[in-house]
Amino acid sequence: MTKEEYSLLEQYMLSCMGDSAHDKEHVYRVLYQALDIGKTEDNVNFDVLIAACLLHDIGRKEQFENPSLCHAMVGGDKAWDFLMANGFAPDFARQVKHCIQTHRYRKDNRPQSLEAKILFDADKLDVTGAMGIARTLIYKGIVSQPIYSLLPDGTVSDGQGDELPSFFQEYKYKLENLYGNFYTARARDMAGERQGAAVEFYNSLYREASASYGEGRLELDKQLV
Amino acid sequence: MTKEEYSLLEQYMLSCMGDSAHDKEHVYRVLYQALDIGKTEDNVNFDVLIAACLLHDIGRKEQFENPSLCHAMVGGDKAWDFLMANGFAPDFARQVKHCIQTHRYRKDNRPQSLEAKILFDADKLDVTGAMGIARTLIYKGIVSQPIYSLLPDGTVSDGQGDELPSFFQEYKYKLENLYGNFYTARARDMAGERQGAAVEFYNSLYREASASYGEGRLELDKQLV
Repeated sequence: MTKEEYSLLEQYMLSCMGDSAHDKEHVYRVLYQALDIGKTEDNVNFDVLIAACLLHDIGRKEQFENPSLCHAMVGGDKAWDFLMANGFAPDFARQVKHCIQTHRYRKDNRPQSLEAKILFDADKLDVTGAMGIARTLIYKGIVSQPIYSLLPDGTVSDGQGDELPSFFQEYKYKLENLYGNFYTARARDMAGERQGAAVEFYNSLYREASASYGEGRLELDKQLV
Repeated sequence: MTKEEYSLLEQYMLSCMGDSAHDKEHVYRVLYQALDIGKTEDNVNFDVLIAACLLHDIGRKEQFENPSLCHAMVGGDKAWDFLMANGFAPDFARQVKHCIQTHRYRKDNRPQSLEAKILFDADKLDVTGAMGIARTLIYKGIVSQPIYSLLPDGTVSDGQGDELPSFFQEYKYKLENLYGNFYTARARDMAGERQGAAVEFYNSLYREASASYGEGRLELDKQLV
């Protein structure tokens, strides 16, 4: 890819980005992580991979404004339109669109090409470890969701079995279960190195929150007459 | 304090709360932590302490809407007005107001009373450890600030010396330096137990972010012609 083509795609990406959990630095991390993974695989089309990484989240704003839309589907269509309007080859645009439309974890629309698998892994890697914790908490701030829910007895729920959205619920239903779902060996290794930081943080936060609701809550009952 | 008085103050607090970093669960954690600390001190006026904890952040919305306002000052005035309008004694309202107005870390307006020192400690405790990390990240989401800034050479800044606001900047300038500033032995002990979780998380996040900008960024330079 020429520097001019890269710059064209980058400017289009920047014009589409909004909230700070899926901000432009996420896109650069995914791009760099994908290139890091790509170096360990054979026969990677790096031009397709670079374009797909840069454009993979350009449908986020549409999904945020209308949650019934899937940002991967919207983004794939937008990328196709942009690439075709700017003189890229149809086969190139088709491959980029496939990567973008399959980068989201969905049972029935899995990545088929090598570049799509690498984008998928690089994107999922950014939800692992401390980075995954940080991005999820930032998103909870954006959508005004709490850290935890309380159980009927007034103690802190660990997230398991929760129906209401919270950081602990998302940890138990999503973040905790990511680590087995990678296509490439390099991404699996990187995720494995990061896993401990996420587990430690969740355990510490749950312990601290639970402790806050311990002794003092009983003392309050004693003080009220 | 009677259960009816507690309920009156609690309802007023709930009517004043907004964003999820300073949400109502923060108020309950501060209240329970303050009672936990209070049990270890002599001659605590628990009624003053309970009222001050419940009402300590009722000026947050005003500060959020107008950052030149100090939520501690606004909250102290609002608490005074509410307590006087609801038949509490002037001396009680005056003590509660003092606690609220000095709970924020400021050089020239430090807590004087024992109850004010306990509120200060309980509130600062909620910025230590994993809880402090979680609440700060949620707040970054609310105000659309990033996790880190980039240095001129394109690598990730650790936050030290940063002029632009980010999570790493706040960690270096605020979160990292809290642990020596407690009035009570109990709070100092609890903060000490939590410190490791915050340090570990920051170190992991910095390591992961830096790694993302490592190999892959050099590979991008090779791929662009």
